[in-house]
Amino acid sequence: MNFQLNNIPQRTEKPRENGLTMVMDKGFSVRQAADFMEVGAAYTDFVKLGWTTALIVPKLEEKLAVYREAGAHPYFGGTLFEAFVVRDQFDDFLRVIEKYRLEYAEISDGSIALPHEEKCEYIAKLAQHVTVISEVGSKDNTKIMAPYKWISLMKAELEAGSWRLIAESRESGNVGLYRESGEVRQGLVDEILNEIPNEKIIWEAPLKSQQVYFIHLIGANVNLGNINPAEIIALETTRMGLRGDTFHYFI
Amino acid sequence: MNFQLNNIPQRTEKPRENGLTMVMDKGFSVRQAADFMEVGAAYTDFVKLGWTTALIVPKLEEKLAVYREAGAHPYFGGTLFEAFVVRDQFDDFLRVIEKYRLEYAEISDGSIALPHEEKCEYIAKLAQHVTVISEVGSKDNTKIMAPYKWISLMKAELEAGSWRLIAESRESGNVGLYRESGEVRQGLVDEILNEIPNEKIIWEAPLKSQQVYFIHLIGANVNLGNINPAEIIALETTRMGLRGDTFHYFI
Amino acid sequence: MNFQLNNIPQRTEKPRENGLTMVMDKGFSVRQAADFMEVGAAYTDFVKLGWTTALIVPKLEEKLAVYREAGAHPYFGGTLFEAFVVRDQFDDFLRVIEKYRLEYAEISDGSIALPHEEKCEYIAKLAQHVTVISEVGSKDNTKIMAPYKWISLMKAELEAGSWRLIAESRESGNVGLYRESGEVRQGLVDEILNEIPNEKIIWEAPLKSQQVYFIHLIGANVNLGNINPAEIIALETTRMGLRGDTFHYFI
Repeated sequence: MNFQLNNIPQRTEKPRENGLTMVMDKGFSVRQAADFMEVGAAYTDFVKLGWTTALIVPKLEEKLAVYREAGAHPYFGGTLFEAFVVRDQFDDFLRVIEKYRLEYAEISDGSIALPHEEKCEYIAKLAQHVTVISEVGSKDNTKIMAPYKWISLMKAELEAGSWRLIAESRESGNVGLYRESGEVRQGLVDEILNEIPNEKIIWEAPLKSQQVYFIHLIGANVNLGNINPAEIIALETTRMGLRGDTFHYFI
Repeated sequence: MNFQLNNIPQRTEKPRENGLTMVMDKGFSVRQAADFMEVGAAYTDFVKLGWTTALIVPKLEEKLAVYREAGAHPYFGGTLFEAFVVRDQFDDFLRVIEKYRLEYAEISDGSIALPHEEKCEYIAKLAQHVTVISEVGSKDNTKIMAPYKWISLMKAELEAGSWRLIAESRESGNVGLYRESGEVRQGLVDEILNEIPNEKIIWEAPLKSQQVYFIHLIGANVNLGNINPAEIIALETTRMGLRGDTFHYFI
Repeated sequence: MNFQLNNIPQRTEKPRENGLTMVMDKGFSVRQAADFMEVGAAYTDFVKLGWTTALIVPKLEEKLAVYREAGAHPYFGGTLFEAFVVRDQFDDFLRVIEKYRLEYAEISDGSIALPHEEKCEYIAKLAQHVTVISEVGSKDNTKIMAPYKWISLMKAELEAGSWRLIAESRESGNVGLYRESGEVRQGLVDEILNEIPNEKIIWEAPLKSQQVYFIHLIGANVNLGNINPAEIIALETTRMGLRGDTFHYFI
């Protein structure tokens, strides 16, 4: 902190087990990544290279190096895993992970129909190589799952070897956990939290109202994902109760 | 591509006649332009300096040089043409084109009332100096044209010497081709495509839902315009069927 | 201007008393600040480091230096004042102002309940050290004030020593002066202008439709605030009647 302000909620520090922030890079240049790290390194635990952007973004190795040197773990979006699986190229996916020396990988089934047993097998296989983050929830707004279904999938994925679960929202924050309007499906969230330890979940919350909701519900050290890099300082002030929206949460 | 993924739709390569992407720069610094080109050069055919921003943006020559060296054609928005014409300064407009050694120019009548014959005369005159892109459609949401009108204007402008037609949407994607909600006027698009070769049209499509619509309708190599520079990698993955929205279009 | 276009409304020049633009920086890196100043220095009078971001943004001194060298006055958002006051740390706030050699400070009560007399005392006290900008209006959408109330608060704050008044909108442009939809509360604006000289007010207007509204109402040289840095060139063209939205205002 640049100066002293009393009674600020204690934030966890790196390497964090809780209070994680996962930010989405959807096509930064190397210098843009460096600018983001200049302000965000202390507050960013993971940088997800959104969906399949890692396939085509230039200077990928250099960008990964920028994030690593700043102490943020880069990994590739779950849609990349799906793109390999749907093409029967899972072994090539493993080679990509090896080529880029990734320590984390995301497994999802938001865009493909993957029998859940098979998804869990992929989780178990990948967990031998990297730390696995698995995503629950469809990117398709018409496929609404009942809470008990979310919970049983989550439990099975943890058992299969997932380190953390990501609750789907997309970049736009209007599917999965959220209604099309971006509003939180509160009943769903309550039921999940009744069965799964909140530390195990990274809530995708791209919109400010969604971040505020989860900070209010769980506290400054909730795990949040799909954060816009330009909002990393803003999010941190929101977590600390230093923005209009959360001003009275911690005092 | 950074690694091998099978069965990706074949994208055209530069210099493209089809599958064009026109991106809008609404006031980048020289370094921001360079960052954009680092990631987007291969995917960007044209950079439009939005509306009249070329008049006041500092270091204009340097920025144009950045785009040219990266192999993207810069040009000035059609509103600049209109600003000169409404002031009876068309000859000064020609001098601006010459001063900045532009190879492309956009002619539009989105903000002024210009008799269509006169617009076509301007197209013919300009076509002697540069490659002309002409824009059809008003920026005014209350001026909705019937499809037959769009088609007859488009045909006349091609005949007058336009190389490509731009279908208006504004930066915000809520006029011309689109309803105020941003939804595509599908009947209009169908009728246009029945009469005008799709290769001749650059569809302004600033919103993701609009890009997805045209990629679904016409394919990976549809011409798209008014793309946000920050979305250039995202758009390319969308074209290639590698994003949730288009995941099943090409497999 | 890069070339000659006739009949453009005369914009005031720095140091401006009128036609002020206040831009919001919500967490730029030093280089991002420099990029912003490369294009925006001539058009930007004030840079507000949004709400409490000054507390945690890295390299704060360097960033302030970038803005100062470019001739834009940096200052800290009013929420920072409130964060100190609510913790009974006003003296520490004075020390922060001194430490960073700030020449301007914003006083607000958007997030805390502060008796108005007390707010005016803070204005008077601060005015001995810096030029005070005070903000009127709540960040809470449910607290809608009648126009006479806005006016009486504004008059009292000017009397207490405020140099300019800011009319609240938040970063999102949907409270205070605006309905939840972002629409201007026109009756409110009219009544304020009937009693308070428009030169004394900086209208927070983050959305384009709001900027267009005030430019139409008051002219090219209206004072506008909470502008997105990426829109600084766009705003200037809008002020000059060189964008579709304002094309016919000054010709």
